[in-house]
Amino acid sequence: MAEKVTISTVAQHAQVSRQTVSNVLNSPDVVREDTRRRVLDAIEALGYRTNRAARQMRTGRSQLIAVRIEPTRDGINGSVLDRFLHGLTDAAATAGYRVMLYTAAGPADEIATYDDLLSSYELDAFVLTGTDHGDVRTEWLAARGVQFVTFGRPWDNPERHLWVDVDGASGTAHATDHLIAAGHRRIGFIGWPAGSGVGDDRRAGWARAMRDAGLEPAAALDRQTPDGIAQGESVAGDLLRGDAPPTALVCASDSLALGALQAVRAAGATVAVTGFDDTPVARAVGLTSVSQPLAEAAAGCMDLLASALDGDHAALGHRIGPMLLQPTLVVRQSA
Amino acid sequence: MAEKVTISTVAQHAQVSRQTVSNVLNSPDVVREDTRRRVLDAIEALGYRTNRAARQMRTGRSQLIAVRIEPTRDGINGSVLDRFLHGLTDAAATAGYRVMLYTAAGPADEIATYDDLLSSYELDAFVLTGTDHGDVRTEWLAARGVQFVTFGRPWDNPERHLWVDVDGASGTAHATDHLIAAGHRRIGFIGWPAGSGVGDDRRAGWARAMRDAGLEPAAALDRQTPDGIAQGESVAGDLLRGDAPPTALVCASDSLALGALQAVRAAGATVAVTGFDDTPVARAVGLTSVSQPLAEAAAGCMDLLASALDGDHAALGHRIGPMLLQPTLVVRQSA
Repeated sequence: MAEKVTISTVAQHAQVSRQTVSNVLNSPDVVREDTRRRVLDAIEALGYRTNRAARQMRTGRSQLIAVRIEPTRDGINGSVLDRFLHGLTDAAATAGYRVMLYTAAGPADEIATYDDLLSSYELDAFVLTGTDHGDVRTEWLAARGVQFVTFGRPWDNPERHLWVDVDGASGTAHATDHLIAAGHRRIGFIGWPAGSGVGDDRRAGWARAMRDAGLEPAAALDRQTPDGIAQGESVAGDLLRGDAPPTALVCASDSLALGALQAVRAAGATVAVTGFDDTPVARAVGLTSVSQPLAEAAAGCMDLLASALDGDHAALGHRIGPMLLQPTLVVRQSA
Repeated sequence: MAEKVTISTVAQHAQVSRQTVSNVLNSPDVVREDTRRRVLDAIEALGYRTNRAARQMRTGRSQLIAVRIEPTRDGINGSVLDRFLHGLTDAAATAGYRVMLYTAAGPADEIATYDDLLSSYELDAFVLTGTDHGDVRTEWLAARGVQFVTFGRPWDNPERHLWVDVDGASGTAHATDHLIAAGHRRIGFIGWPAGSGVGDDRRAGWARAMRDAGLEPAAALDRQTPDGIAQGESVAGDLLRGDAPPTALVCASDSLALGALQAVRAAGATVAVTGFDDTPVARAVGLTSVSQPLAEAAAGCMDLLASALDGDHAALGHRIGPMLLQPTLVVRQSA
């Protein structure tokens, strides 16, 4: 890789101060014409053209995108969005963008924050994580012509806006297929209460794989609970004490799966368990789990945004198809 | 809490567009004097004064701070810096600041990134995570008069710059005291190779607590290894196969402790194990671990920066003392 060209390199080459280079990029009218020309020549000669600052000068854009950072809940599932954030920061840097963080207590607070951010900083775009039916945030941004991409699809209408998502149904179907191949027939599902896009999708994958194998995704095997280790343990305990207990459990999260494993151990039973998200906890306890390609998802978000901001509709049209990414099953001791 | 005052609220109150409010804040000379007056009156009446944008107008500052986001390593210890980042974003929002992220492959790349960031954005300050002996990054920033705070103390000279840290030695001493109180006498330490500020500090806490109890922190019980589960397992296995194996192990990280637990289980031994950082993995496997007050550390960093940026030396003088925060021991099944 060539040595990194920075403002300092340009300043040295043009024999001016860094401040002068900065002025040429940000307030060109305060710089004398011959100096300005010398700096622009240095920028050209050094190939500084692809750099954000020079690009910003050409495009009038800030090369700054904003993403929300969520409070971690039980500390297990939160690692997914943290990994996405790491990937996004990497992908943004490669594309010449920077990431700004914000927090929000809920959709209304998030919209107030958009308003504040847009008036205080010249943001180019937002990356939204998590989407649900009739998302008020995306409506607000779209109505104001603000560019954005969501990690999570618009459940009502896939054509609504730019998005990248992971095929959760495919993930739980993989897990179910894996259990069926190992000889399991009574395979239960522990997931979140019906009504959330992500949760319903993961449940649908289990049901589909069961039916495809000629098995019944019976209501008695399908349990709904808020997320959490204790919740998973409680629901799995219930299932194991039932008349015809399952021999395997597909769970919608690693938290639920960890609780299920504890219930299995407490019951002295031998029941296979799979989780979702392949968190560090899954690796630590030997939990078989569905892994989301988070770095790829983050890079996809940045790609779509960069194409949209560049007005590159050909690239956008080409890319919008494959943005539903496939997860993989990481097989460990638990199933 | 009063309803949040945004640019929109101000615009509505002053009967102008949001753009006009933004112009008053950012380019006041393009706004007619009577309009400007009306907007400033609205800002005053609505108490928008404490908001970032208005503050920015008063101070000429961007209210933007930058922090590096690290690649997660084994996914266990990385959660510590993620939790710090969540806390920092929260604390920054409360103080009217925003957080910008950057990545860097090493100290030299990080310095090139400072240069790039400072010339492209009007950053107010940096928050640096992780410090080591003779840190070139802090020297670079200090030489250029850029404001910064480190999460991690300057090991060579505590007076060098603003910092917040957690007393790691106190954490491992707590863990050692806890084991001594439970009757253990042969207590081993598994930590990182000598030479890192953080690692040496954690080792020193174990040695100090041993000596304070009249026990010998023998070299045969003190093992050094790079961080990781496999490394912890290997080193602990060695110790357990020794002539006078320890009955308890204090580890410098949850990764090492998790490996040690696996070695203990493999040996069929009963050996108490403690970790460091109270990660989600520690909670999931019942590992007793030292917990760092990360939200408090992040808030401390923001406090120091805000005082420094405001030129509030009285507050700074008052605050610089107690910025070595005390960790706590979270006792679970493993010790």
